[in-house]
Amino acid sequence: MYHFRNDYSVGCHPAVLEALSAVNAEHVIGYGSDQYCKECADLIRSLCKAPQASVEFMIGGTQTNFTALAAFLRPWESIISPVSGHINGHESGAVEATGHKILAVRTAANGKLTPAHILPIVEECKDPHLTKPRLVYISDATETGGVYTKAELTELSLCCRRNGLLLFLDGARLGCAMASLPNDLTLADIAELTDAFYIGGTKNGAMMGEALVITDPALQGEFFRMKKQHGAVLAKGWLIGVQFQALLKDGLYFQIAQNAVDVAQYLQGGLKNLGIPMMADSPTNQIFPVVPNSLLPHLEKLCTYEVWGKADDTHTVIRFVTSFATPLASADGLLKDIKDLT
Amino acid sequence: MYHFRNDYSVGCHPAVLEALSAVNAEHVIGYGSDQYCKECADLIRSLCKAPQASVEFMIGGTQTNFTALAAFLRPWESIISPVSGHINGHESGAVEATGHKILAVRTAANGKLTPAHILPIVEECKDPHLTKPRLVYISDATETGGVYTKAELTELSLCCRRNGLLLFLDGARLGCAMASLPNDLTLADIAELTDAFYIGGTKNGAMMGEALVITDPALQGEFFRMKKQHGAVLAKGWLIGVQFQALLKDGLYFQIAQNAVDVAQYLQGGLKNLGIPMMADSPTNQIFPVVPNSLLPHLEKLCTYEVWGKADDTHTVIRFVTSFATPLASADGLLKDIKDLT
Amino acid sequence: MYHFRNDYSVGCHPAVLEALSAVNAEHVIGYGSDQYCKECADLIRSLCKAPQASVEFMIGGTQTNFTALAAFLRPWESIISPVSGHINGHESGAVEATGHKILAVRTAANGKLTPAHILPIVEECKDPHLTKPRLVYISDATETGGVYTKAELTELSLCCRRNGLLLFLDGARLGCAMASLPNDLTLADIAELTDAFYIGGTKNGAMMGEALVITDPALQGEFFRMKKQHGAVLAKGWLIGVQFQALLKDGLYFQIAQNAVDVAQYLQGGLKNLGIPMMADSPTNQIFPVVPNSLLPHLEKLCTYEVWGKADDTHTVIRFVTSFATPLASADGLLKDIKDLT
Amino acid sequence: MYHFRNDYSVGCHPAVLEALSAVNAEHVIGYGSDQYCKECADLIRSLCKAPQASVEFMIGGTQTNFTALAAFLRPWESIISPVSGHINGHESGAVEATGHKILAVRTAANGKLTPAHILPIVEECKDPHLTKPRLVYISDATETGGVYTKAELTELSLCCRRNGLLLFLDGARLGCAMASLPNDLTLADIAELTDAFYIGGTKNGAMMGEALVITDPALQGEFFRMKKQHGAVLAKGWLIGVQFQALLKDGLYFQIAQNAVDVAQYLQGGLKNLGIPMMADSPTNQIFPVVPNSLLPHLEKLCTYEVWGKADDTHTVIRFVTSFATPLASADGLLKDIKDLT
Repeated sequence: MYHFRNDYSVGCHPAVLEALSAVNAEHVIGYGSDQYCKECADLIRSLCKAPQASVEFMIGGTQTNFTALAAFLRPWESIISPVSGHINGHESGAVEATGHKILAVRTAANGKLTPAHILPIVEECKDPHLTKPRLVYISDATETGGVYTKAELTELSLCCRRNGLLLFLDGARLGCAMASLPNDLTLADIAELTDAFYIGGTKNGAMMGEALVITDPALQGEFFRMKKQHGAVLAKGWLIGVQFQALLKDGLYFQIAQNAVDVAQYLQGGLKNLGIPMMADSPTNQIFPVVPNSLLPHLEKLCTYEVWGKADDTHTVIRFVTSFATPLASADGLLKDIKDLT
Repeated sequence: MYHFRNDYSVGCHPAVLEALSAVNAEHVIGYGSDQYCKECADLIRSLCKAPQASVEFMIGGTQTNFTALAAFLRPWESIISPVSGHINGHESGAVEATGHKILAVRTAANGKLTPAHILPIVEECKDPHLTKPRLVYISDATETGGVYTKAELTELSLCCRRNGLLLFLDGARLGCAMASLPNDLTLADIAELTDAFYIGGTKNGAMMGEALVITDPALQGEFFRMKKQHGAVLAKGWLIGVQFQALLKDGLYFQIAQNAVDVAQYLQGGLKNLGIPMMADSPTNQIFPVVPNSLLPHLEKLCTYEVWGKADDTHTVIRFVTSFATPLASADGLLKDIKDLT
Repeated sequence: MYHFRNDYSVGCHPAVLEALSAVNAEHVIGYGSDQYCKECADLIRSLCKAPQASVEFMIGGTQTNFTALAAFLRPWESIISPVSGHINGHESGAVEATGHKILAVRTAANGKLTPAHILPIVEECKDPHLTKPRLVYISDATETGGVYTKAELTELSLCCRRNGLLLFLDGARLGCAMASLPNDLTLADIAELTDAFYIGGTKNGAMMGEALVITDPALQGEFFRMKKQHGAVLAKGWLIGVQFQALLKDGLYFQIAQNAVDVAQYLQGGLKNLGIPMMADSPTNQIFPVVPNSLLPHLEKLCTYEVWGKADDTHTVIRFVTSFATPLASADGLLKDIKDLT
Repeated sequence: MYHFRNDYSVGCHPAVLEALSAVNAEHVIGYGSDQYCKECADLIRSLCKAPQASVEFMIGGTQTNFTALAAFLRPWESIISPVSGHINGHESGAVEATGHKILAVRTAANGKLTPAHILPIVEECKDPHLTKPRLVYISDATETGGVYTKAELTELSLCCRRNGLLLFLDGARLGCAMASLPNDLTLADIAELTDAFYIGGTKNGAMMGEALVITDPALQGEFFRMKKQHGAVLAKGWLIGVQFQALLKDGLYFQIAQNAVDVAQYLQGGLKNLGIPMMADSPTNQIFPVVPNSLLPHLEKLCTYEVWGKADDTHTVIRFVTSFATPLASADGLLKDIKDLT
């Protein structure tokens, strides 16, 4: 059985487990005020070349999204997001549960936002019977594997700043975005161009945890109280700091993302050689083959995957996802087995 | 240095770490729909003799409290809680952030609620300009080490049922409550007498995690969507199931709670022998010595603890907490060192 | 100057003012528990042939929408609404501020929902990572003058009941909908086919006030506490009961709606005769002429209206609205003046 | 029958009704952007000597309280209020429904707050596991007729400013507070010493309406969107402006408050002469006689009043309230009838 269901289906990278084991018996102060979190926050600030940034260790992605957004916004303010944005579709109304409207905008299949999506909304919402758009939510990579270039993010950032909008980047899959071919962004670029973003741990080697980087000092105040209010303060907070330290101190985070992307790209190329087209080419660790429905019963015996949607009456879009735990051999094996089938 | 600051200052019990390590490389389905969580939920239902109960694995205590309470209540309904209840004092307004008023009632120093606290509130709130009390929140043990007997919990439960009130028991420190001398409650009793309660993992051997048991079937529906909305669904959900399995399958959970209580009681007895009185006797793993202020600078060099409050102009109440990671030798050592000092 | 800006730009119908004056010096019990509200609620139940219904007098439309929806829903439940629904576009995020997501669906220009809009959303939301759709929000008439027939509302109602969805009808302009040519619904039909709806006062002759009719007994409980919580309890509650009594007891409500519709239809016909097309034909008291931009400066001197949007580079959609206070002479005068201009 | 139940049991002062009648047929622009509201806001700014203030016309007291408080606060911020504060006891959890905790503090029977109530809370809440107190809520007059002097309000204001707290004054009964003997505050004083307050209309001669004065410019932004979101924008907004203009332009507001206070004080004096003591002397339009239970059945036939609470086993505290609609003759008549009874 080959595993391509998602990038959060094994525990954690062995180095992370080792780091957690090494500190397991130590007595550490709680709630994230420990030395591990402090050092790791310093490391992240340094990687981001953002000495003014605050770093907040959170437990998961949905929590990071709604806690940050609700902390940054006033009650009458709303969020511009792609229709495909994770906050709009897969978080059970978490953002609305904090009281804020999402102004969802239809994008190209890659799920990326551009100023052309944003400006008409800003214009329409000058009417004070509507909410005031105050924050633009994007993901890098997007849900469908879209990756922002530096030029694109710069343009978006300028558009936001000119229009009084905050720019928030959901980085649940930031590692793989940065390891992908089209990427030319550094962490420092992202820190400069956004007001807040996060470095996803859950989907790139950690047991759990996201590192939220709030680069705009005006947004940092009293964030601890906000985290506490939303259940985002882990009593044993150092457990997240220790994991991110293990991932970031020697570049492991980026190496394992590279592995995930490489294996996914190898698989994508191989499938295309076998005549299986993609819904759209994705440069990241998620790929979206369009397979004949007749293949699905066989595929289910070979590997795990997710059904993404119907392509046409006889074809289905499926999703393969790779992670640090996906060896190249899995891709190779799957390709051979599919070749044998077809 | 002896460690008595709290019961969540080391990683996890070695057996828990071992269990996590054993499954670390396995591919498991996410969001808590895995086999480990299923088996562990069955085990908990069986320990509680409550086959109808649903078991929800949550990440932390604050999150469990506000997610459950908000799931159970309608917008105009409120919560009766002791003033000293964790939801009222130490969760940064998390319950109110979900829209519900806490009707806080002053209790005796042990923090325990009785029908006499509840009935006048029910009476007053018949006025429809007020919120409608719908849920009674208690903790076992309370913040000050109060422990409910079976007679007390039965009386409270009857009072709630007669008055249309749900009874919710915060069990962040349930292990130590049940290991304490005054306790005569079983898990099955608690399941029968409450509508929902939780078995705390964070403060009794787990890295993180609380097992919420919803015994009232009317409260169980769509709880997954509620968890997701409040960031309480861990992507790698099996990590909590695996931990609780390690703790519960052979009674480890109760053994380590017993150790914590025994060491705390030994320390409490020893301190009293040294002429140091308690704010009030506590039968659990938390004790509250009243020490001369002049002792504090010396104590800080010997051990970790928390300042609980001012006793009088020359004395301070401090809190010592024990856990699975507190050897009897620590209590012994501290007692000897204090004896030397005084 | 002719007035066509909206249907809430004069105080109230003279008969309503007279009724308010007649009771002005009386001492009446507050908060809507008075005899006027009771009698008027009985009258409405009788008009609706719905003896089981509760009638709640509210102050305005936005308030009625969010208070009712938030009362009816659990935290994880969401609302299906047309994109053009008032709650989605013109209430400053009021529904989201109570914590609920709106699942907005694009409709035809008439703004009407059909089962075909609803079923795919129900299907998609079986995924528990999404909110659970629980209520369908429609307006009669819609924002663009769409009016439901009995067959359409019946079909929608059946679809809702089969799928566990509540049906809520925003009746801010219900009077004009019912006075329009395509309408074949009675109040009794609407009461039978929906779970709750309201009879709009503000836009049909009252100073302020909407009469919410909750026909489903399961939704009625503790609604007073909910109203109080959301500022919807007028201290001098009888002021709304008295107004609705004046409007409903002898059919004045329906007569003035008929006048508004008749004048609007007369104007629509006249404009079309003058070669001015409509964005779409509307059978109600709102019409949407498409005028050359060059006409606008002249029109501004003749009458009040609202700009609805751009039609093309040289044409603008405007909105004319009539009310009880729009004499046929205004329509006649405006038509003559426009004829003179063109 | 003499009427002493409350100060909102008749429609409105005849001059207010006349003003409403005078504009009834006029076409006016909606949502409070009309000339009447503009002029009346200017008048209020001038009375308050606060040219920088914004004036927001609201519909009722509960709505004003929660809309303003929620607009001013960030999610983790809380409100210090007397236990007897209207927001804490009689608004069905409206403030909590917007997500904010009320830190209720026990006061003397007069319901007034002093710095001594506030400072310990500020101190305790330095712990970031708690909410951050950010606003102090007071009422003038309080629910039990307490009235602030200029010295007291100045001291409170200084305490707030030194501690980063906003000061909000609920003026539902501000007219009677200012007409009372102990008062030495002017509107200009109140505007200077608070960050926001309101001039109550509902309880002093208007049909409905409160005039919220936001003196701190930092709190004014986008308040219209906030009002809209909370149902506080009346479509026919000028109806409130017109009423306040009628009340304020020639001092009618203060004259009718004076009448209410004078009659209440006359009644209080008379009752004391008859040997009926007060729960506490109140200088406003609300008084609190302690009557033998045996008197109640007779009293019910003579006049309307509210039961305030039990005094002892044989006595009850009742409340008499006067308004612009209470002639001195009513007090005289009631005193004579009680004298006859006793």
